[in-house]
Amino acid sequence: MSGQAAPGRDEFARFETLTTRWSDNDVYGHMNNAVHYRLFDTAVNGFLIGQGLLDIKAGDQVFLVVETGCRYFSEMAFPDVIHAGLSVAHLGNSSVSYRIGLFANDAARAAAVGQFVHVNVDRQTRRPVAISGRVREALEALMPDQQG
Amino acid sequence: MSGQAAPGRDEFARFETLTTRWSDNDVYGHMNNAVHYRLFDTAVNGFLIGQGLLDIKAGDQVFLVVETGCRYFSEMAFPDVIHAGLSVAHLGNSSVSYRIGLFANDAARAAAVGQFVHVNVDRQTRRPVAISGRVREALEALMPDQQG
Amino acid sequence: MSGQAAPGRDEFARFETLTTRWSDNDVYGHMNNAVHYRLFDTAVNGFLIGQGLLDIKAGDQVFLVVETGCRYFSEMAFPDVIHAGLSVAHLGNSSVSYRIGLFANDAARAAAVGQFVHVNVDRQTRRPVAISGRVREALEALMPDQQG
Amino acid sequence: MSGQAAPGRDEFARFETLTTRWSDNDVYGHMNNAVHYRLFDTAVNGFLIGQGLLDIKAGDQVFLVVETGCRYFSEMAFPDVIHAGLSVAHLGNSSVSYRIGLFANDAARAAAVGQFVHVNVDRQTRRPVAISGRVREALEALMPDQQG
Repeated sequence: MSGQAAPGRDEFARFETLTTRWSDNDVYGHMNNAVHYRLFDTAVNGFLIGQGLLDIKAGDQVFLVVETGCRYFSEMAFPDVIHAGLSVAHLGNSSVSYRIGLFANDAARAAAVGQFVHVNVDRQTRRPVAISGRVREALEALMPDQQG
Repeated sequence: MSGQAAPGRDEFARFETLTTRWSDNDVYGHMNNAVHYRLFDTAVNGFLIGQGLLDIKAGDQVFLVVETGCRYFSEMAFPDVIHAGLSVAHLGNSSVSYRIGLFANDAARAAAVGQFVHVNVDRQTRRPVAISGRVREALEALMPDQQG
Repeated sequence: MSGQAAPGRDEFARFETLTTRWSDNDVYGHMNNAVHYRLFDTAVNGFLIGQGLLDIKAGDQVFLVVETGCRYFSEMAFPDVIHAGLSVAHLGNSSVSYRIGLFANDAARAAAVGQFVHVNVDRQTRRPVAISGRVREALEALMPDQQG
Repeated sequence: MSGQAAPGRDEFARFETLTTRWSDNDVYGHMNNAVHYRLFDTAVNGFLIGQGLLDIKAGDQVFLVVETGCRYFSEMAFPDVIHAGLSVAHLGNSSVSYRIGLFANDAARAAAVGQFVHVNVDRQTRRPVAISGRVREALEALMPDQQG
């Protein structure tokens, strides 16, 4: 990725530890580019569920993904253990943009950095709803401004 | 994605037909956001292999993914049949940026649009190599300028 | 698989055509063994949905998987097109055991044969419920005895 | 699974800890039946690689899967952490049959039990080769007879 250095761990507010799988490696012997996205929504939803902020089965509101992206700096591969760093890059009225760094084992620099944009919607109508209360507080706590 | 219309089929140079799978649907009953990326590299590599431009096992050069992205306009779900439209948005010396539209069944507008950036590298050294010859010609033929 | 020949297409009652994906190939350059199971439940549920026998979102009853198995006779790989043959090997009161053959492209012999056992349950209680009516009729029509 | 109790942890020789992913959950809100197989070959190959017994890229011999199977006793779901118990049920001249139990979080009984049969083959010819030396010793150490 010309012109842009891979970020370090200090750029992320919290981490989830994720194991890789044999089938993550494609024919080139490295983690297939789509697997990174499986790790992104695992990190984001793992955070939300762990904080008691998302009730998959019964909640009135759910988050839907409207945009994602990834830059790949270096290869990862099974059996690497991945540390997914999570921060909130932007928090709008009903949407939140996460920034996620994937670090292999004890690497100081991310092997990949993702963007993951969630919109909070009503489960039935799927219309946007403002992010408020405990959810907003938890997301604000992941913003870089809030970490120091 | 507010402020940007989903593209139509005429914005893509060629199409691959891809079937969906039961496991593509996540707990929300729609195609999980990471599945789109599995369809993107299936469309791109299916094109390259079908044209005889990529020899996975024995080629001296391979394409590595350096950046991907996706905007999600509407939901798709198993058992939809997906028509993946493929064009080349930018062709550099050693890199190519594909634009891919995913159309569900007979929909006129894409449910999602992806960006997929490949760099041509030497299989052993993984250093960039110029895209030339038949490969470059085939990619040029997918550029909008070249379509008439 | 010593001592057992791969079955031919005439052993299956109906077929679903399924496309493969780039990420199906693992580091050995062939379809990973777990992908076969993604194709099995795609074939079974594709049949049920196509026949109007399964309403994923609103049905009172759903099928849960209680046992699966696969024998691998030969390798398949992206970009093969797979023809999944489907038959009912056993139909009990509340359970059905499917036999599924995966044929690559125009191969006469299956590359793999799977067993897939579904139990019909109440969506809420997840207790077994008798398979009856149109569903039973459709499954009976897939039993070898019924095919002529 | 009528007539057969789910095994306990003492029936397995060693354990691998595996994290689940958001996309493991299908529309029924539980781990899709095919994911179990991704965990099986992750546990088996993770063991082999961890012991220095498998060199994916450069080894003269590789293991190919010839038969797999799974019985599902209870549901698992993201974000469960899975403890995969591994034992060798049968060790032949060139083949090995693993028995794998998947335990969710701190459950005493397995949620699923799998069979996974590997044949040791020459990487080039893909013909069976005897399992010998350090590999055989490591596999023998996973046989129930050898554990106590």
